[in-house]
Amino acid sequence: MAGSTFGRVFTITTFGESHGPAIGVVIDGAPPGISLATGDVQKELDRRRPGQSAITTPRAEKDRVEILSGVFDGLTTGTPIALLIRNEDTKSSDYDNLRNLFRPGHADWTYGAKYGVRDWRGSGRASGRETAARVAAGAVARRVLEARGVSILGFSREIDGVRAQSVDPAEIERNPARCPDPGAAPRMVERIERARADGDSVGGIVEVVVGNCPPGLGDPVFDKLEALLAHGIMSVGAVRGVEVGAGFEAARMRGISNGMEIVIRAALRPPASIARPQRTLDASGESVTVEIAGRHDPCIVPRAVPVIEAMTALVLVDCLLVQAAYSSR
Amino acid sequence: MAGSTFGRVFTITTFGESHGPAIGVVIDGAPPGISLATGDVQKELDRRRPGQSAITTPRAEKDRVEILSGVFDGLTTGTPIALLIRNEDTKSSDYDNLRNLFRPGHADWTYGAKYGVRDWRGSGRASGRETAARVAAGAVARRVLEARGVSILGFSREIDGVRAQSVDPAEIERNPARCPDPGAAPRMVERIERARADGDSVGGIVEVVVGNCPPGLGDPVFDKLEALLAHGIMSVGAVRGVEVGAGFEAARMRGISNGMEIVIRAALRPPASIARPQRTLDASGESVTVEIAGRHDPCIVPRAVPVIEAMTALVLVDCLLVQAAYSSR
Amino acid sequence: MAGSTFGRVFTITTFGESHGPAIGVVIDGAPPGISLATGDVQKELDRRRPGQSAITTPRAEKDRVEILSGVFDGLTTGTPIALLIRNEDTKSSDYDNLRNLFRPGHADWTYGAKYGVRDWRGSGRASGRETAARVAAGAVARRVLEARGVSILGFSREIDGVRAQSVDPAEIERNPARCPDPGAAPRMVERIERARADGDSVGGIVEVVVGNCPPGLGDPVFDKLEALLAHGIMSVGAVRGVEVGAGFEAARMRGISNGMEIVIRAALRPPASIARPQRTLDASGESVTVEIAGRHDPCIVPRAVPVIEAMTALVLVDCLLVQAAYSSR
Amino acid sequence: MAGSTFGRVFTITTFGESHGPAIGVVIDGAPPGISLATGDVQKELDRRRPGQSAITTPRAEKDRVEILSGVFDGLTTGTPIALLIRNEDTKSSDYDNLRNLFRPGHADWTYGAKYGVRDWRGSGRASGRETAARVAAGAVARRVLEARGVSILGFSREIDGVRAQSVDPAEIERNPARCPDPGAAPRMVERIERARADGDSVGGIVEVVVGNCPPGLGDPVFDKLEALLAHGIMSVGAVRGVEVGAGFEAARMRGISNGMEIVIRAALRPPASIARPQRTLDASGESVTVEIAGRHDPCIVPRAVPVIEAMTALVLVDCLLVQAAYSSR
Repeated sequence: MAGSTFGRVFTITTFGESHGPAIGVVIDGAPPGISLATGDVQKELDRRRPGQSAITTPRAEKDRVEILSGVFDGLTTGTPIALLIRNEDTKSSDYDNLRNLFRPGHADWTYGAKYGVRDWRGSGRASGRETAARVAAGAVARRVLEARGVSILGFSREIDGVRAQSVDPAEIERNPARCPDPGAAPRMVERIERARADGDSVGGIVEVVVGNCPPGLGDPVFDKLEALLAHGIMSVGAVRGVEVGAGFEAARMRGISNGMEIVIRAALRPPASIARPQRTLDASGESVTVEIAGRHDPCIVPRAVPVIEAMTALVLVDCLLVQAAYSSR
Repeated sequence: MAGSTFGRVFTITTFGESHGPAIGVVIDGAPPGISLATGDVQKELDRRRPGQSAITTPRAEKDRVEILSGVFDGLTTGTPIALLIRNEDTKSSDYDNLRNLFRPGHADWTYGAKYGVRDWRGSGRASGRETAARVAAGAVARRVLEARGVSILGFSREIDGVRAQSVDPAEIERNPARCPDPGAAPRMVERIERARADGDSVGGIVEVVVGNCPPGLGDPVFDKLEALLAHGIMSVGAVRGVEVGAGFEAARMRGISNGMEIVIRAALRPPASIARPQRTLDASGESVTVEIAGRHDPCIVPRAVPVIEAMTALVLVDCLLVQAAYSSR
Repeated sequence: MAGSTFGRVFTITTFGESHGPAIGVVIDGAPPGISLATGDVQKELDRRRPGQSAITTPRAEKDRVEILSGVFDGLTTGTPIALLIRNEDTKSSDYDNLRNLFRPGHADWTYGAKYGVRDWRGSGRASGRETAARVAAGAVARRVLEARGVSILGFSREIDGVRAQSVDPAEIERNPARCPDPGAAPRMVERIERARADGDSVGGIVEVVVGNCPPGLGDPVFDKLEALLAHGIMSVGAVRGVEVGAGFEAARMRGISNGMEIVIRAALRPPASIARPQRTLDASGESVTVEIAGRHDPCIVPRAVPVIEAMTALVLVDCLLVQAAYSSR
Repeated sequence: MAGSTFGRVFTITTFGESHGPAIGVVIDGAPPGISLATGDVQKELDRRRPGQSAITTPRAEKDRVEILSGVFDGLTTGTPIALLIRNEDTKSSDYDNLRNLFRPGHADWTYGAKYGVRDWRGSGRASGRETAARVAAGAVARRVLEARGVSILGFSREIDGVRAQSVDPAEIERNPARCPDPGAAPRMVERIERARADGDSVGGIVEVVVGNCPPGLGDPVFDKLEALLAHGIMSVGAVRGVEVGAGFEAARMRGISNGMEIVIRAALRPPASIARPQRTLDASGESVTVEIAGRHDPCIVPRAVPVIEAMTALVLVDCLLVQAAYSSR
């Protein structure tokens, strides 16, 4: 109930602060007999980690994952799978001036008000770094889905108003914007680079398409598949809107079509840590000017693609296992 | 886990089929000492019920609520509050031709596939009638919020492309579209009436504004306030998209603003039960034409306003009670 | 989290006070396709209700159950099953002198301290009457178990020190003590009658034997079958101890045997409402003498048999459905 | 739902196999601002670990704990606390002959049947070693209780039929049996040593007394304090019975007394790994003779004391936090 657990049968609990000893996740409820190696998880973490391309933050988090439990002889055993990622390159001195400040647009103030104490180094628990634990758990979920032939494909549908007009899956990992349209990709990259040069930041839209999804996933009433997806995806810090299928366009349609293909879109706001001086409050409530020295992305949309994919995979596997409980009755 | 329960501390469990003996809800975890009368619940049910205006379905569901438990001498006692609404005017003969058909855009097929058996009368459990139980529970949540000075104001922001340009709270209940802009209201009503005349249906956007909301509601990571709201609101059948704050517009902004006012928008698709003949499948998989005799709304946006308000109230009260568990530690 | 819900997949939520309009239960997660009639539930309620024999309280609660939802054409549909029992014969005037008193050994004081307000009539929510809702839900669980060939047999193993030395299933319902040993039965009845004559009360031990139980039920670590049974059975008000298998005898054994037959024993204390004057506290903390006019059992062991059976059935079905979620992966 | 999580607000999730890389626990929901150092946890682990005295197994598990998250500047921050214990001295070669065998009285067969695959080394997840993670989490719970003046005192009430007749708290940690009666202690030790000499094993009873417990803990109906304690304690592998207060003696009492002091007793069976040859089944269902080379305790009662204390502490803290959610409303 304290918020770090997600899922009903395939349940994940994440832990860790950005500048503490480690972050990680415990997965309880993973099916036994699924082939799982460290590399399966590392591969997804490498897609999320900073420093992977010219347009992301140069922080060199290596994000090496270790499997602590739940796997024996290369197969999951049905017991909890604990995944550990030690924190490295945590220059907390970058954040020394934040000890008594609350950064604008961050959760700093909220945590301080809620708990009385807070780890002020680099957002602590509220850091985007927490999503690495989600991606690690999502990698296990993806192995379960692959075993059932279900595919998950994510990409940047839009960045700073530049929209992908076509979707070529082969194109996505070829450009640092994770744009599926080779025409739009260079323009997206250009927008991100310009924002960096201006000390500014930009947002965008991540789209995820689920292929070969079994029918009937999700429960009636409160735990419909769409509702669980909305919950999981809206819980990613920068997300401000979630759509399924026709989404907001449906509000202007006549009649309806009820296609079986699952498409999800998440709107991401521009990141809050920008290089320009900003007005904020200090611990005594005084208004002060803060410049944030930490190295941050001018646009998190490309790195958010594996995170939104992970949340989608986690919800789908959870629903698959819940469905099994009922269909086998 | 079977989907009919929502909330962590203020927990609701709904039950009932549209054409069975009754629908209802059990609320476990309501605070004690809150003043609660049948009229408090009835008032909200009357805003949702069919037949309330010229532009809604003429089905005359009276929706009389009875409080079965949890209230003594006009105050809640902290024990479960059970609310019962008997079904009346349930002409299941209207649905006789659906015994072996699955209606396009309805959950009929999904339920049939999932459970093997189904109550084929008027969508059964999947009927929009289930939302009456949510509104009843939401009325109790609203009483808790009122005692803390928190207000919830919902309205139709857009119907069939006609958008409210201003928000006058006094205007909302004065027109059957629940439009807060007296200029846009007649045009919304006209669009709905035209859709009915055409045997067609239209969608729209419901907006809910929360006033005087205590800071820090919601938990870190997976149970952020926005995530719980997205879950609850996306679980309403016709909703295809949920936004908080700037929503999808945020994807095109530079920098961010982190206002404290809570605004939520839900996109509702046009309802699926339209009067024109439609192609669908029968139980043996054959394609057939179906005409649906039941009396349905050409637009559910106005009646969805109290439903989205109810889901918002339920999430807020749940978060308030969870916060109490931690702040008093 | 407020305590009125039990189970993980086969989830029950009970509601109602002893002297309010009604009590009842909502079962979410029942499998579809199970044959269920009102009589199936009524039969079990009749085994629990007061006034069924010379040695129980003469209160004539009829306990007529109504199925409100979840059943169509005689079969469960997989949707929530709501069961309603209206309260009758609720002489709250019997309890008028308790408005400002807390009865010794009752939960009155605890509820008052916890919630500030309380329904003082006949223990309100804390009344043993709440177990009728458990028995009603248990009747549905028993139907699910019967369909799988699992049997549940409960009886009074011991009353006021008189112990059944043999178990003849046919004997149990033939005597009002629910004693499976025809030799011990009259002595148990005699002890109960003597306690009534003395205005006193006696306790005993209920035993439940599960036949043909599938192997491997229960989850590792915290949700072992024994742990869930202990939780459910210890939650019945008068129970002070729970054993599985050899129980406390195992503490004195050498080595172990790990039989497959499931045997559970629950120790029940004497009921607290006895006819003799007792010292207690009033609302202002003064010590006063109270005589309790309500009609109560001098021994609840025979009527507790269907309650402990119900809790056993509820746990077993829940574990069966959880197992299905994993075994079908 | 997969069984490795316990608690509602103060929630623990344990992970790890006895012969894998590590075991550990994630605590979500711990209050912020509690002083917590590695030594606080290490102290309790040292009371549980093997090799601590002449009468326990000579396996030299060092059980060094590392705090991975949730603590900053010596105080808990309200975020998840992850505790890690690396496995050392894991001679899996001791278990080579068990690769295709199922040990009598162990969960080996159950896990094998349930999951299809299993970690056959030293019981894997089903090993008693999992209780180290519970003790680590319990140490954090004890810090929370200490801050509120609540004390928890556990001891061996009975071993192999030898019963402690008096309770001197200062005596408990002075003798390897954790017996509070200096007269009974040497006789308990003697019984354990004789069992070891015979290649046999013995059981006993652990008692825990809670001092200064706030009134009203636990929720009505299913989550009474006694029910949650029974759940938690019965989930410890060797426990076969749980009593609260007068326990099974209450079944033979007249009238009742409703004292406020909380006393819990757990009956522990003799451990299953004994040195003598035993008959069991191999993977093909053949009956074979097995000798178990692993080093095991002839009596686990003294080492179970901190485990039962830990489960008691975990339940109490969980109830304290739940109560806070309601009382502050």
